[in-house]
Amino acid sequence: MEDLTYLEKITRASAPGMVRVPLQPLLDFVAAFMEKMGLNRADSEKAAEVLVTSDLRGIESHGVPRLDMYLEMFRLDLIQPEAPYTIERESGATALVNGGRGLGLVVGPRAMQLAIDKAQASGVGMVAVTNSSHFGIAGYYAEMALAHDMIGLAFTNASPLGVPTGGREHRVGTNPLAFAAPANQEMPFLLDMATTAVSFGKIEIAARSGRSIPIGWGLDPEGHPTTDPYVALKYRLAAPLGSFPELSSHKGYGLGVMVDILCGVLSGMGYGMRLPRLQAGHFFGALRIDAFRDVTEFKAEMDDMIRELRSTKPVEGVERVYVAGEKEFLAEAVNRQLGVPLLAGVVQRLLELGQELDIPTPGITLE
Amino acid sequence: MEDLTYLEKITRASAPGMVRVPLQPLLDFVAAFMEKMGLNRADSEKAAEVLVTSDLRGIESHGVPRLDMYLEMFRLDLIQPEAPYTIERESGATALVNGGRGLGLVVGPRAMQLAIDKAQASGVGMVAVTNSSHFGIAGYYAEMALAHDMIGLAFTNASPLGVPTGGREHRVGTNPLAFAAPANQEMPFLLDMATTAVSFGKIEIAARSGRSIPIGWGLDPEGHPTTDPYVALKYRLAAPLGSFPELSSHKGYGLGVMVDILCGVLSGMGYGMRLPRLQAGHFFGALRIDAFRDVTEFKAEMDDMIRELRSTKPVEGVERVYVAGEKEFLAEAVNRQLGVPLLAGVVQRLLELGQELDIPTPGITLE
Repeated sequence: MEDLTYLEKITRASAPGMVRVPLQPLLDFVAAFMEKMGLNRADSEKAAEVLVTSDLRGIESHGVPRLDMYLEMFRLDLIQPEAPYTIERESGATALVNGGRGLGLVVGPRAMQLAIDKAQASGVGMVAVTNSSHFGIAGYYAEMALAHDMIGLAFTNASPLGVPTGGREHRVGTNPLAFAAPANQEMPFLLDMATTAVSFGKIEIAARSGRSIPIGWGLDPEGHPTTDPYVALKYRLAAPLGSFPELSSHKGYGLGVMVDILCGVLSGMGYGMRLPRLQAGHFFGALRIDAFRDVTEFKAEMDDMIRELRSTKPVEGVERVYVAGEKEFLAEAVNRQLGVPLLAGVVQRLLELGQELDIPTPGITLE
Repeated sequence: MEDLTYLEKITRASAPGMVRVPLQPLLDFVAAFMEKMGLNRADSEKAAEVLVTSDLRGIESHGVPRLDMYLEMFRLDLIQPEAPYTIERESGATALVNGGRGLGLVVGPRAMQLAIDKAQASGVGMVAVTNSSHFGIAGYYAEMALAHDMIGLAFTNASPLGVPTGGREHRVGTNPLAFAAPANQEMPFLLDMATTAVSFGKIEIAARSGRSIPIGWGLDPEGHPTTDPYVALKYRLAAPLGSFPELSSHKGYGLGVMVDILCGVLSGMGYGMRLPRLQAGHFFGALRIDAFRDVTEFKAEMDDMIRELRSTKPVEGVERVYVAGEKEFLAEAVNRQLGVPLLAGVVQRLLELGQELDIPTPGITLE
């Protein structure tokens, strides 16, 4: 989904340090942006919520810095603002949804809700989605299951970046997977991970800050590891999770293909090299916990497990061990109070977008 | 599930080179072994099939070299030979199975079949299993779905070995996950992977051959990478997939916990540090492809995808790129003809077991 136009814009506008923007003005701005693109009010607010959740959690690769990417997609007519959302196949526990080439940030929440509704009725719900587009953070969707005492799953495919083990060409997207399970007193478990060693956004961020990347993130056109983020970005060559054959990069590669099978092949959207530009297929799942075990018992044992993981004796110099999702939930709690942290260049770009598109920007400043 | 007694036995009996044992005599021997342990004939044959499939595919960490581990489990009364198999909760698409402390190699196939039956009726079947034990290779179960034009999923938890990112103590098992999807003319896609950088068996194999291990497989008690397999084995400290924090080892760690949530917490079996010794919980899933898409179309596109992955331009010096499962299916095809490859020390141990337990060993020789 990533493109260099976006990178160039952000790089050009880059300024040192972070700026905090209050939450509500940011949500209002993104919703107004989406309305300007032709979405109705409800869809615009939902899209803003999904996108800004990413910034709130400190996942800067997937939030409002992507507005330019969405703008380009609308302008190229790759996204239909009022897309027809249709259920093409359906059973008590399964569905195939056609997103009608709509915005992933709008199609995604509806399709995940369908998986939750099906799980409510049948214990489990599994929904494949075709004809959608970039849906933001996968974790948002998996997390939707938690309020219903369910386990949530969310996957999306994306344009090729990942290089199969032993290869020197990309074939598989960063294809993230997310898995969420509720606890009682502890924060939920929320795993949300690209199946490449790192997301493309992380390589972009290194490039923007002029830093080299660790050996094991990206490759050069010969298929050898590179420390130069611009080389990895230019040729779009990211290493799968595991990074090197002797550290089992075939596993990250295999996980990426697994996500492509569910989101691209099973949905009919198209996999890797056959995924239409800037489009995406998704796959959502929900499991009702009480179909398997008493919910109170489950959550109590999740609390115990999470505490036991956190209490792992740390390596010297490391403060403590974290559990998936914990850092992001902690960041969100802080950022809701203090404001959403954005690079000054990103805020500058929001202000420019406001001018270009005639969207008011009250409360959004570089101060 | 691994223990040093087994390692010591194999190491003591080690001899150079591999020996090929014909398939049927090996199956007969393992089935006779299981009958001697008290299993009925049908269960014994099924257990032999699951176990030997691992050796056929060249996955030497999970096949007949583990017979001593199973022997110990029977002798310690950790496995009930004629265990009651009960369905404790059930809906059209879900079930919780209680394996009654039975052998995983017997409980697993029945529970996966239940997931398949449920998918036949409801489009999807999800089955959690408690009170089971080591079930061999996860891939065997995921693959069972293929003949029914389904996608298969299989997970199991195991005793702690994996070290959370930033930690210096184990908390999570090698907790493998398997995912299988059918193709038409091509071999199926079959991902079967430990969520640690490598399975414990691979570290054992390095120790047996007196080789050092790559940095990134195991840790020392300070939580630092070690190249000494004996250190990693002694303290049971394996690195999660990703190996190092800067290469996203939190993802492998998170995947391991995900598997523990499904197999240990959701099933009620117990997770990581609370999993009773040598026992295991499992989680199985089956998805009927035609609940989402026409099966013929799906398989044709799987063929295309697999060919495209295989045709990735390789790194210089690499013959070609493989797809998950391909090497193992190729190995199986060869080994069915030429005989099952086993280390001479393993064959020697089978012959000893035959004498100790009064099991005939026709066709099993060190020649």
